[in-house]
Amino acid sequence: MAVRDTFHEAVRNALVKEGWTITHDPLSLSFGGVDLYIDLGAEKMIAAEREGQRIAVEIKSFSGPSLVSDFHAALGQFLNYRLVLEAQDAARDLYLAVPLDAHAVFFSLPFAQAAIQRYQLRLLVYDGQKEEIVQWQS
Amino acid sequence: MAVRDTFHEAVRNALVKEGWTITHDPLSLSFGGVDLYIDLGAEKMIAAEREGQRIAVEIKSFSGPSLVSDFHAALGQFLNYRLVLEAQDAARDLYLAVPLDAHAVFFSLPFAQAAIQRYQLRLLVYDGQKEEIVQWQS
Repeated sequence: MAVRDTFHEAVRNALVKEGWTITHDPLSLSFGGVDLYIDLGAEKMIAAEREGQRIAVEIKSFSGPSLVSDFHAALGQFLNYRLVLEAQDAARDLYLAVPLDAHAVFFSLPFAQAAIQRYQLRLLVYDGQKEEIVQWQS
Repeated sequence: MAVRDTFHEAVRNALVKEGWTITHDPLSLSFGGVDLYIDLGAEKMIAAEREGQRIAVEIKSFSGPSLVSDFHAALGQFLNYRLVLEAQDAARDLYLAVPLDAHAVFFSLPFAQAAIQRYQLRLLVYDGQKEEIVQWQS
């Protein structure tokens, strides 16, 4: 199983443990002629629901050779997906799922903090091994 | 020469043809402990100057297997670079250089147009073969 699939499963299982119902796996999105799901480079998204709250989760492994490059791609994907969700399913909150180790190393840096604040990223920090959600940050 | 280097040269030459002076090639940026130049997945940036106007150009080949994925990455990189430029060199305008064919195929779609408008991307459309700038869009 590819690294990204392992992480996908871990986040899915962590959400279920916390009482979420998985409603779409993968969640596919399209907008004005572009199928965002046909997105070879991107990890697949999950949609879930709990007590009336609906979320979409963009799962990132941050396993590439550069955390900065992975972050660029994650940010762009997040903002494009949010744009589409706002138009089609505005009550669904989008989260970027980030593994614990990448969060500790990269997401505490002033650069990442500035980007998170500016672009209002919501993060879900997960422990890929324990398959647990460590932190919701919004 | 890799595809991305060919495109880099084409944009550089096109800028010079239009009377720009290349001041940094590559332009390196760092912010609060993160060296954005050590960014293995990213094409290098150019800085140029003409009649007192200063620009930074993020050059994208859009030669990957998915234009959507390439666009996610380009958008994230653009927004992160703009964040850093605003803090360090606010008078320098950032442009995303897009090849003519990718512009024709992808950037006219409603999805791309919505993202360009929402995130206020400035585009520089270039002809990689003629080494000419076709359009400035801001």
